[in-house]
This record gives sequence, C-alpha cells and structure tokens, in this order.
Amino acid sequence: MRVYDIISKKRHKKELTKEELLFAVNGFVNGEIPDYQMSALLMAIACNSLTNQETSDLTEIMAKSGDMYNLSELGEFTADKHSTGGVGDKTTLIVAPIVACAGLKVAKMSGRGLGFTGGTADKLEAIKGYKISLPYNEFINNVKKTGVSVITQSGNLCKADKLMYALRDVTATVDSIPLIVSSIMSKKIASGAKTIVLDVKKGSGAFCKNIKKATELSEKMVNIGKRHNRKIAAVITDMDKPLGKYIGNLLEVKEAITTLKNETGGELKEVSLVLSAEMISLSKNISYEKAYKQAKEILESNKAFYKFLEWMENQGADLNFLKNYNDFENALYKKEIKAQKNGFVTKINAEQVGNVSVMLGAGRKEKQDIIDNYAGIKIEKNVGDKVQPNDCLAVLYSNKKISKETEDYFYNAYDFGNKKPKIKPAVLKIIE
Amino acid sequence: MRVYDIISKKRHKKELTKEELLFAVNGFVNGEIPDYQMSALLMAIACNSLTNQETSDLTEIMAKSGDMYNLSELGEFTADKHSTGGVGDKTTLIVAPIVACAGLKVAKMSGRGLGFTGGTADKLEAIKGYKISLPYNEFINNVKKTGVSVITQSGNLCKADKLMYALRDVTATVDSIPLIVSSIMSKKIASGAKTIVLDVKKGSGAFCKNIKKATELSEKMVNIGKRHNRKIAAVITDMDKPLGKYIGNLLEVKEAITTLKNETGGELKEVSLVLSAEMISLSKNISYEKAYKQAKEILESNKAFYKFLEWMENQGADLNFLKNYNDFENALYKKEIKAQKNGFVTKINAEQVGNVSVMLGAGRKEKQDIIDNYAGIKIEKNVGDKVQPNDCLAVLYSNKKISKETEDYFYNAYDFGNKKPKIKPAVLKIIE
Repeated sequence: MRVYDIISKKRHKKELTKEELLFAVNGFVNGEIPDYQMSALLMAIACNSLTNQETSDLTEIMAKSGDMYNLSELGEFTADKHSTGGVGDKTTLIVAPIVACAGLKVAKMSGRGLGFTGGTADKLEAIKGYKISLPYNEFINNVKKTGVSVITQSGNLCKADKLMYALRDVTATVDSIPLIVSSIMSKKIASGAKTIVLDVKKGSGAFCKNIKKATELSEKMVNIGKRHNRKIAAVITDMDKPLGKYIGNLLEVKEAITTLKNETGGELKEVSLVLSAEMISLSKNISYEKAYKQAKEILESNKAFYKFLEWMENQGADLNFLKNYNDFENALYKKEIKAQKNGFVTKINAEQVGNVSVMLGAGRKEKQDIIDNYAGIKIEKNVGDKVQPNDCLAVLYSNKKISKETEDYFYNAYDFGNKKPKIKPAVLKIIE
Repeated sequence: MRVYDIISKKRHKKELTKEELLFAVNGFVNGEIPDYQMSALLMAIACNSLTNQETSDLTEIMAKSGDMYNLSELGEFTADKHSTGGVGDKTTLIVAPIVACAGLKVAKMSGRGLGFTGGTADKLEAIKGYKISLPYNEFINNVKKTGVSVITQSGNLCKADKLMYALRDVTATVDSIPLIVSSIMSKKIASGAKTIVLDVKKGSGAFCKNIKKATELSEKMVNIGKRHNRKIAAVITDMDKPLGKYIGNLLEVKEAITTLKNETGGELKEVSLVLSAEMISLSKNISYEKAYKQAKEILESNKAFYKFLEWMENQGADLNFLKNYNDFENALYKKEIKAQKNGFVTKINAEQVGNVSVMLGAGRKEKQDIIDNYAGIKIEKNVGDKVQPNDCLAVLYSNKKISKETEDYFYNAYDFGNKKPKIKPAVLKIIE
C-alpha cells in the first residue's frame, strides 16, 4: 500500500477503505508518512468530504491511536457531554452535578480553550486547589464516591487527533465537517462513556454560523456515535450572543455557582437543564419530559449545588475560596462600557465578545499564553434590553490596563435598533 | 499576508490575487513556507481549480522565479514546440530542422523523460559526442549559425516549478489541469520564443485519455500563451498507440534519420509536418496551407536532413556514429514477440508499450536511473495489420536479459479482432 494512492483516491472523490485510512493515520503517527503528504490528504478530505462509513472508520482509528478508557467498572450509567465551543459556556459546571444527583457517572476529560472559545479545564484550573490532573485510579475513585470528576485530557488520548489537529490548524482544514466529527467523536469514544450528549453551538460565536451547518454536524456526530453503540443526542443551542452574563474563567465559575444556588437563571439555566435532561433520559431510558422534571427538581432543591461542593472538595478545591465568589470580580482594572444612544440592544456578536475576553487575558491567542483568571466580561445589558446614553452595557475586567481599542472593539460588538428584537429560544433543536 | 489565509481562500473556492499567489510561491521557493502548507495549497488548487486569470498569474510568477531568456537577439522568428509527453515521440528531431530551413530560429531547451514517456534530451544525449549542455553564448551562436540548437533545461529555469513539481509528484496533484498548464507554460514563457506550438497527446499513452480533456488542456494553454503575447497553437495528436515504429533512445534517433532521409513516412511524418506547418504559419504570418506545402517541400527535398546534420555537427555529434544508424539495433539481447492467433491488430496500448521500454532500460523509473541507449522496441505489426500465428509483432531490445514477464506484459498491450479496425487520423484537432 502506498500513501500516494490513498491521497490520489480521495483527490478523485473515491471512498477509502478502513485499511487505507488505518495505513495513512498510523503511518503519520509513527512518523513514516511526512507532514506534506498528510496535509495533502487532509485537504483532499476537506474538499471532497468523507462518507459516513469513512468518517466512522477514521473515528475508530483515531480513538484507538492512543489510550482507550473502559469505564465499565462504573456501571451502565456513565455519561459525557461535549460542547463544540462557545463564549460564556459554563454548562459543564452545572450539568455534571445535576446528572450525578440523578445517578449518572460523569468521568469526564475536558479540553483547554484556544482562540475566542473557552475550555472547561481552564475554568476548573482557575479554582484554588482544584487538581485538574489526577492519576487514573484516583479519578475513577472520585467518580465512584461522588458521581463526578473532571480532569484534563491525558497526553495520550487520541494521539492521532493531536498530531492531525496541529497540521489542520496551519493548513486551513479545521473547518471540515467530517474532520471535526472524527476529531470530536474519537475523543468521546476513547473516553469510554456509554451516553454522550453533544451541545452543538450555532451562531456568530460558533463554528456553525447557521442552523443548516449545525444540523449537518449534529446528524453526522449522532450517526457515528450510534455506529459505536453509544446512546447519543445532539442539542443545538444558540450562540448568536454569549451564553449567560459572564465571560472569563473565575467570572464563569461565579455564574455557575449562582445558578446552582438558584440566585440566577435565564438561558444558562435552561440550556443546562435541557442538556441534563437529555443525558438522564438517554442513560436511564426514561422519557425526556420525566428527565427534565427530575433535573429541574434536583437543581431547584439545591441538591446539585451540594453535589458541586462535594465534587470540588473531593478534587482538592479550596471551599473558602469558592464561598467568596464575589471576590472573583476583583481584577485590578475594571472598565464600564457605556451606551451612547437610546434604543434596544438588537445583537451582541459573540465572536467579538470572545475576542475581547482573549484581549483582556481570559483566553489564549497561542497555546503557550498564560491566562489571567480574573480577566473577563460582565454583560449588563443583553439582547432585547432598552438602553439610554450612559447606561452601563458591560464591565470589562483585567489585571493589565484596558486599552481604548479593546473598549471600542467591544462596543462595536453591540448593535442597537429602535424596536425591541424578537428573542430566539436558547435551545433550537434536538437531534437523536 | 498569511499563507494560511491564502490556503483557506482556495479551499473555499475563492479567486486568489496575483499578490497572494506571489506571496505563496516566492515564500515556498525561499523556504519560508513549509512543504506541508504548499502541499495543502496545491491540493486545494487540484480540487477547486484556478480561473484563467489565476493560472496566467501563477504561470508568470513561476516563469520569473528563475532565469528568463530573452531571445530578441535572434530576431522575430524564434519558435519553440512542446509535447505533453508520449511514447515514441521523436518529432523534435524532425521538426526543428524543417522549420530552421524555413527561417525560424529554434533555441530550444528540452526535458528528460520520467516514467513511460521519453524525453528529447535523453534521445539527443544518446548520440555520441552530442553536447546536451552548452554555455548560453555558444547555444545562441549555434542558433545564429544554423537556426537550431537544443540543450537541456538549465537548473535555474523556473525554479518554483521544479520545487512545486517535486511536491506534486508525491502528493497526487500532478494531474491538475491548471497546475499542468502553469508548469508547462511557465517554462515556455521563460524560454523566450515568440511562437509556441504545443503537441497535446491524447490517448492510452498520454495524460489526456480523451479528446475532451485534451481540448480543455489545449485551450487553457493557448489562452495563457496569448495573455503573454505569444503566437501560439495546440495540435492534438493521437497517442492511443505509439508514434512511429520505434521506441527507445537510439532507435528513435534512427527513425528520425530515416524520416528525414525520406526512407520512411507514415504518421510520424504527418505529425511532424503538421507541427512544422503550424510553427511556420504562426511565426511568418502565412496561411497554414502554404506553410504545410513549404514544410513538405523542405522535408522531401532532403533539405531538412542536411540541416539536421549541420545541427548535429555544430553541437559536437559524431557524424560517423550517426551514419551507421543501423547499428542502433545492436543491443546484446533481442526478442521477437510472435502473434499467437489469426486476425487484425485492433489496439496497441501505448502506456503499456512505454512501460515495457522502461523495463528494457530505455527509460527511468526513478530520476537517478541510468538509461540503456540501445534498449527499446521495434513495432513490426501496427494497428490495422493482419496477422497470423508466428508473425513477428515486434522486437524487444536490451543490454540486459529480457524476462518472460516483460514479453508477456508486452504481448498483452496488443488487442486482436476479426475485422480490420477503422484507423484514426494522427492529427485530431488544431486549437489556435
């Protein structure tokens, strides 16, 4: 077998066999196939796509290229969630304790953020004392004890995906649906949970800018999950504006806590409940309505909040630090962004807001960048709110001085109009 | 400017500006853009094609990446020909002296062969004494003196093409029409001749397997030539079977000589006359019919043969060696391939015949392979000939032992039938 012929086949829109995909991926991981041939193959895939069979095969090959976790010792109710990446998305911190209360086992490996989307691992790591890396046994024991543990991805999870992603990142092949599907699903398959719920973001702050693309991506991921005997669903949620009020690592931890304590609610609460309900419904084989009711009861009775504290304590977090979550707004520099006219907020561009959070220090431009845990944004006026000049739209937080350019760029993320805009629902579609 | 954005644009089927193409090509030539990014860009081009404007820009950028020859000191009748590569194609050896007799100036740089297609430089180099590399001044002086000189391509002609071709060769992007067009045309533009006639081969022994593809390639090359102020035409010729009777370096020199001496004729003579007529007609601005008549008169009066000898002598060839061209059949091993049944020859697969010539030592599998100048094939029974068992179909020549596999593989290049097949013309179409 020659990788040349494999590249040539895909360039000419022919279907690759599992053996051919295995040869290409393993050869690349072993260093026998050079970067320039793999990047040609990835571009041929990006241009000519993959069939469901090819995507399924590629997913399995990538999953098996590194450690495969078998969570069977945790029983049949292992469950995982994955978000395709958005701005202000702190749902894992709320969903994991809810479903753990319902008897699900969440042994979850989370990624770090890059660019304008945040990563759950970064938010958890911002919590004083939280051990984001744990030996496997301790990780599993934590789940056995409390039902939930979240650690960062081990270096050896989906080795092929790591290497292929690095190449895609510099060759403009990141935004290929089958490559996204196999990248996400290989990690989910390798992570071992029986139930998988995908939160597919749609809008200005997401990879999928429209519902068509979000639906296509969702359907393909659900298809691959089912081929690998997973109970799986995709929930398409709105990311035309940031999710919730806060963006930035500790600020998002604060909002997760106030939601768990039922002090705040809104779209963040609704998305968290829908994701929790899907996980419970699939895992426990009960109706969605029943599962939703259960999730709501768990959250509103503060059971989820106590489960969160149990999880945190188990994983070494300093509970005193968490108790003083109002201190999370104590960044050295704060800047109120004021409205300059009368009207309604009609849009908040989520990608632009995400970019501002990176400028403030809350995210990474490059992998090696260091994060300012206190940096971020509090949204005071959201889409649909009426404003008049000098009203505070939002507050920017940072431990470094906030430039006028950042302020102006943030202001431009807002659109205003004379009429109150129609508010879209937070959950757009569920695909099973 | 970032090469990432350039790759991304082409991946999303957008047109690249000249500045973007320049940035990518020059960055690659300078070593600032790594192989893996250039191979992704080449694959995106192969999948999503280039517009005529992009192809024209790319051609110019590639031409200017190395030495540019200005043949103006040779006057206004400089002319060049190019073949897209076939089996048994020795027309340059016949056409160059014909058009030189008509007053054209042929200062030609020829390539070497790779794979089943032969290269003119290899055929000339097989001639004892022939200097295939000449200092530029000597090359130009030869043309001034006799009207013709053919040397091998300088190492610095179209530097970008050399580097890009090496990458295309291992990433399955050789067979992309715009990349073929820019590769061929950049070399023709850099070589400086005012008139260019392209011999586009169509059939089993050519890149273009059908007339549609040959027409597309021809039209695009003619378009690019015109955009660069060249007088240009493409002649689509048949390569469903080898051209002429002989394949192999010295064997082809022999056939060129016998054609120039009017001892043999057929399709080789016809293709040579058409190519010559096109070159004369375009360069001298006379009708094709008049030019054809002139070419025929030059060839049939032996003027072209004497011009050939003059060219050879000027370039150091041993005329005694050439005189004894019957010795060119003196390879150590000869093997007659015999017909096994009654009937008509209906097909001779040119690619298979080309592959056999490589097996015999007449061509290169890899760039560093050494050529056996005496190796090759003489076709005794051609398409349309009636055969009966034990008739000699062809003779294989080599200085190494000829294996049974080679014989069988060669025999399989022949197809037989009960009815005399319709003979296609050698010249299929002319595109101006």
